Amino acid sequence: MPKKQASKKIAPSLIARAKKIRVLLMDVDGVLTDGHIWLLSRRDGTASEIKGFSAYDGAGLKLARAAGLRTGVITGRESTAMEQRARECEIEFVYQHRATKLGALEEILRITGADSGEVAYVGDDLPDIPVLQRVGLAVAVSNAVPEVKRAAHFVTSRAGGDGAIREVIELIVKAQGKWAVASRDAMA
Amino acid sequence: MPKKQASKKIAPSLIARAKKIRVLLMDVDGVLTDGHIWLLSRRDGTASEIKGFSAYDGAGLKLARAAGLRTGVITGRESTAMEQRARECEIEFVYQHRATKLGALEEILRITGADSGEVAYVGDDLPDIPVLQRVGLAVAVSNAVPEVKRAAHFVTSRAGGDGAIREVIELIVKAQGKWAVASRDAMA
Amino acid sequence: MPKKQASKKIAPSLIARAKKIRVLLMDVDGVLTDGHIWLLSRRDGTASEIKGFSAYDGAGLKLARAAGLRTGVITGRESTAMEQRARECEIEFVYQHRATKLGALEEILRITGADSGEVAYVGDDLPDIPVLQRVGLAVAVSNAVPEVKRAAHFVTSRAGGDGAIREVIELIVKAQGKWAVASRDAMA
Amino acid sequence: MPKKQASKKIAPSLIARAKKIRVLLMDVDGVLTDGHIWLLSRRDGTASEIKGFSAYDGAGLKLARAAGLRTGVITGRESTAMEQRARECEIEFVYQHRATKLGALEEILRITGADSGEVAYVGDDLPDIPVLQRVGLAVAVSNAVPEVKRAAHFVTSRAGGDGAIREVIELIVKAQGKWAVASRDAMA
Repeated sequence: MPKKQASKKIAPSLIARAKKIRVLLMDVDGVLTDGHIWLLSRRDGTASEIKGFSAYDGAGLKLARAAGLRTGVITGRESTAMEQRARECEIEFVYQHRATKLGALEEILRITGADSGEVAYVGDDLPDIPVLQRVGLAVAVSNAVPEVKRAAHFVTSRAGGDGAIREVIELIVKAQGKWAVASRDAMA
Repeated sequence: MPKKQASKKIAPSLIARAKKIRVLLMDVDGVLTDGHIWLLSRRDGTASEIKGFSAYDGAGLKLARAAGLRTGVITGRESTAMEQRARECEIEFVYQHRATKLGALEEILRITGADSGEVAYVGDDLPDIPVLQRVGLAVAVSNAVPEVKRAAHFVTSRAGGDGAIREVIELIVKAQGKWAVASRDAMA
Repeated sequence: MPKKQASKKIAPSLIARAKKIRVLLMDVDGVLTDGHIWLLSRRDGTASEIKGFSAYDGAGLKLARAAGLRTGVITGRESTAMEQRARECEIEFVYQHRATKLGALEEILRITGADSGEVAYVGDDLPDIPVLQRVGLAVAVSNAVPEVKRAAHFVTSRAGGDGAIREVIELIVKAQGKWAVASRDAMA
Repeated sequence: MPKKQASKKIAPSLIARAKKIRVLLMDVDGVLTDGHIWLLSRRDGTASEIKGFSAYDGAGLKLARAAGLRTGVITGRESTAMEQRARECEIEFVYQHRATKLGALEEILRITGADSGEVAYVGDDLPDIPVLQRVGLAVAVSNAVPEVKRAAHFVTSRAGGDGAIREVIELIVKAQGKWAVASRDAMA
């Protein structure tokens, strides 16, 4: 989990970006998971996908909603595992099976009325770069490819599927001064 | 597995707390597992949960029962995987799908007749804190969030799902002078 | 993911080998996966195999195809998980259930019209050695057994199932001067 | 995988023990797996077990059979995953659901006609100790509990489920001077 002292190193320009965020969007594989694609063999010649999420991210996503953030995922793959996880974590926007991601971003901007400076996006691989270049807070997970890290305002210390999203949520919600209240609610 | 010398560093005040324990309660995700939520996609739009437990914790939980401890889990999620694991490990109390945990604690205190000083609880995230503040022996796993570690009397050296519960059981059963007999029984 | 500076250390003789490659072949277990064989118990006395692939390898394999490489797997095991993953990653040749691998190599050489110097093969264990001794670019993953590493022109820094294939693809596609275009396409 | 130089450090007394081995027996959880018990939730209130084995152990077990060793598992749990893996790896003796293990050892001694000095056993937890105290070559995996390591003639450098069994097989087959022929056959 993110260390207590991590918040000390946050640059003021990053805090300024985080303060404006109203919508937190993210990729799925390598971001909400550790980038492993698990397939269970079926006898009919197909396979069913298994995904491994983080309980800490899940608690963080509910806390983000309680703090007033809107959340969503945009991914090139498609699975009912992701659909169910979105329900559990109160993720509002679920765009799956998207070869390119900018169209989904545009749609979410339209629905929420947010401008791109009010959106944070978390990614790990090449297809995430066009979205990262558009948003107010571009985040790369620690396991992202070098090109994605170069396109980001912030690189998490936690890996995807291992608390990276919790770390981003703590950054945003603390910058907005809502952490104490939101985490107290999480205990009630 | 816990190193042999680990028992040397235990503070006397901790041993005093461990001696009194009659009931060992624990969270599930991040404590009996490593905090990953695994979901298998189903064709009907839902997903089935997979949980990864530790064989060392399992053997430890049976040993705890043999040493006279009563055991239980309190968790916000719900799965038949946890139910079956509880049967295998002779876990007596299984409270699943609990948004808040204090109600389950109260019920277990009533059933067992134990007072809160005779209860140990092992947790990893914010919803565990109210319970940790009530019990005689409050334990955080090594992968717990900072707030939980601060609320604990003891932080394990093993991570959740990787022997943390075995480590807690060894602490308690050794403090009570029952380890030699209980582990001899485990070999018979 | 492969570090940016990794490409600096590549020996000229290795680049010469990589430039010639038209066909990229690979083993499955320990190469496209981390070498774990996962089996789900079924009530009829059998078990279904689960395989864990890398999202980074998957994106790399599609990028390899876009850059003009032909790709294939040769494995001693057989699973529909591998079949589906091959479809997802546009892997053209899928030879499963092969006790020995040279026959499959010969067949692929015949179909593609490539000579063995135009083939790269990535392996990790003893049955891969006869193929590695035949091809123009013999690659061992970082988790390969010592005998396989000794038979290879190149040992990846990434492990099987954790980006080793992406690393090999970057080596080949960059040596052929096609990386910039191919990765730009991956973002579009 | 076991490093090349590992064989240099083997004590002569250990080689003497390894030379005599005709039967290689092992525990399952923590030895052929990494000690995680994976359970998939079913809608009927039960759960199905998933086990994660090592491809390197699997290749090693076939190589052991080719070198003339007889192999078997003795475990307290029961799963069809283990049954299928035994078939794949040509494991001859499969004793599951055994609370105590000495009975199974006796039966295998009777069937094979081996004396206990000709048996190697690999274990990781307390129930393995009585068997380890009986056999000619007692092995603990690197992740074994301290009591098991103290009862062993040899502690592997690899962990259970990550090549520990392959390491033991290399030790035995090399001590018996059969490695070169057996590994050549594995490539054919």
